[in-house]
Amino acid sequence: MSNDDTAPGIDRRTLVSILASLPVLSGTLRATPAQAQVSASDPLASWNDGPAKQAIVDFVRATTDRSGPNYVAPEERIATFDQDGTLWVEHPIYSQVVYCLDRVPAVVAKKPELKNVEPFKTVLSGNREAIAKLPLRELEKILVATLTGMSVDEFNAEARKWLESAKHPRWNRPYTELVYLPMLEVQRYLRDNGYKTYIVTGGGQDFVRVYAEKVYGIPPEQVVGTMGGTKYGYGKDGKPFLTKEPKLLLNDDKAGKAQGIHLMIGRRPYAAFGNSDGDREMLEYTKAGGGARLAMLVMHDDDKREYAYGPARGLPATKVGAFSTALDDEAKTKGWTVISMKNDWKRIFPFDSEARAG
Amino acid sequence: MSNDDTAPGIDRRTLVSILASLPVLSGTLRATPAQAQVSASDPLASWNDGPAKQAIVDFVRATTDRSGPNYVAPEERIATFDQDGTLWVEHPIYSQVVYCLDRVPAVVAKKPELKNVEPFKTVLSGNREAIAKLPLRELEKILVATLTGMSVDEFNAEARKWLESAKHPRWNRPYTELVYLPMLEVQRYLRDNGYKTYIVTGGGQDFVRVYAEKVYGIPPEQVVGTMGGTKYGYGKDGKPFLTKEPKLLLNDDKAGKAQGIHLMIGRRPYAAFGNSDGDREMLEYTKAGGGARLAMLVMHDDDKREYAYGPARGLPATKVGAFSTALDDEAKTKGWTVISMKNDWKRIFPFDSEARAG
Repeated sequence: MSNDDTAPGIDRRTLVSILASLPVLSGTLRATPAQAQVSASDPLASWNDGPAKQAIVDFVRATTDRSGPNYVAPEERIATFDQDGTLWVEHPIYSQVVYCLDRVPAVVAKKPELKNVEPFKTVLSGNREAIAKLPLRELEKILVATLTGMSVDEFNAEARKWLESAKHPRWNRPYTELVYLPMLEVQRYLRDNGYKTYIVTGGGQDFVRVYAEKVYGIPPEQVVGTMGGTKYGYGKDGKPFLTKEPKLLLNDDKAGKAQGIHLMIGRRPYAAFGNSDGDREMLEYTKAGGGARLAMLVMHDDDKREYAYGPARGLPATKVGAFSTALDDEAKTKGWTVISMKNDWKRIFPFDSEARAG
Repeated sequence: MSNDDTAPGIDRRTLVSILASLPVLSGTLRATPAQAQVSASDPLASWNDGPAKQAIVDFVRATTDRSGPNYVAPEERIATFDQDGTLWVEHPIYSQVVYCLDRVPAVVAKKPELKNVEPFKTVLSGNREAIAKLPLRELEKILVATLTGMSVDEFNAEARKWLESAKHPRWNRPYTELVYLPMLEVQRYLRDNGYKTYIVTGGGQDFVRVYAEKVYGIPPEQVVGTMGGTKYGYGKDGKPFLTKEPKLLLNDDKAGKAQGIHLMIGRRPYAAFGNSDGDREMLEYTKAGGGARLAMLVMHDDDKREYAYGPARGLPATKVGAFSTALDDEAKTKGWTVISMKNDWKRIFPFDSEARAG
């Protein structure tokens, strides 16, 4: 396998470092999908007043004012959102990576000959240090084994089942509850103003589609992610079905996000939201269009309520969703708005009580 | 270049035979986009009463009746349409192939060294017989030279300009006027009943997106076609742009149509319309879902008002949009409805006068 056509679903560059911070295998508890409780009076009720909130309101006003110079026709109103770290928690590691590791026992149960074969043997051992030392080529085998080789329907069922039972180690809640209420409000506010909202994620397109409609109100056809090929075949009953193949069509990260937007949407967004260096090109591509364009970056600077990582502004360095000083500088130069989780967000999660907020 | 990653936009298998029936290079006249004139009383006014019209009406009633067993939730209402031969004229050859050949002089003007190089030399000669004899590998060079290597914006501008000036040799009208009024009515009827209409074409996704919104009311993000890769880069002004690359991501034909639907939509359609063996898997995949599903095939059996080709039912054989006897037999077995242009369509084109119809 070449470097370019394996590893569907994950940015391989970050994999090694991600695995260094492995969580325990997740427990079981039924998930309740998060629902935004948006005040009727203020569509952005979870936002503190400030430049970030103002930028969103100004953008919506400018692009929906028919008499203004920056009016955007309804069919052109496209807004794109990165997912990991922008819409939901990405630390200590991406949820989809946890999914892949959690799936290893099931894969080995079906193919017992893998039990003593690397990298499966090491993953089954649960030895974090050893897992982190696995070579990239070996780690790719885990992704291929857990994300491909099954039918689309089987994959969807497996992912759905996992999402209903897996829990984040810090909050002991399903991953689908760890979504940022202020971003749910932005999505709804944009949709209420005629915007079509898309997820544009480095995560696997098929994985995110499983829950995007329930969690974000974003249908499968509006999820752009890292894309793998499929194969058309027939079951014993003669019915056709698609099998997920270990063939990478597009790594939807960095420049791949602009490419993915062109491929899947065919229009340039008017608003784009991200949180890391992987979103740089998406914001740049968005801003390169004419008229009013909104580019925003979530900065994780709230260790108390969520996490703090940069390395921009002296925040702790990370390889999971890094926000570099270069990105921060570019944001200043180009008029991209940085959202401070600590200062701009009154509440972080839908389950945060109003009382605890602020 | 391997056989699998060149020739974006066209099913290579049919290319040689297509080129055997080359039209003259097209003339110039400004195109007026076709608009369906739909009677308020009958949404399918251009259809004669019969099993085809009845199948459409029954399907819409069944899937929108909240109290019925085949009710489909609005978000699940997806309808897919092949384009060439299903929505607009595909004979004597696909419009996009004419575009590629018409673009050769412009490509050579920019790169005069190609003037005496094959296959450009032969295409410039206008010698149909010689063009038809060009080897496949040479013909692919025409597709690569005319569909890739330029920015997405440049390609869109070129294609738009061509569509405004090129005319079909038989009707002496722009290609975008040669759309089937009964199919425009079906699309509108489905949309009025909550369906999201998609084009799923073997043609180039970027090419069809240029005019799909104006001609069919279908936005770029609802056009699924043969997909090529793009490259992200920067202009002299520092602005980013995408360049169309000679890298085939998906040949959206036959099984590729089911794969393209999964990739771009992520849901199984409830209704699918095609006209040739290239649409077989799309209809099969659609029908494999549960509940009421509509699968229809347009049969070109009207030599007088359009064209007649099969080879099904003793119609003349063709390699451009062939409807085989095997497909016709499968349609009978599986409950797919065949639309007879001759018998089911009162009018073919929007420019047909009511008086001439019937």
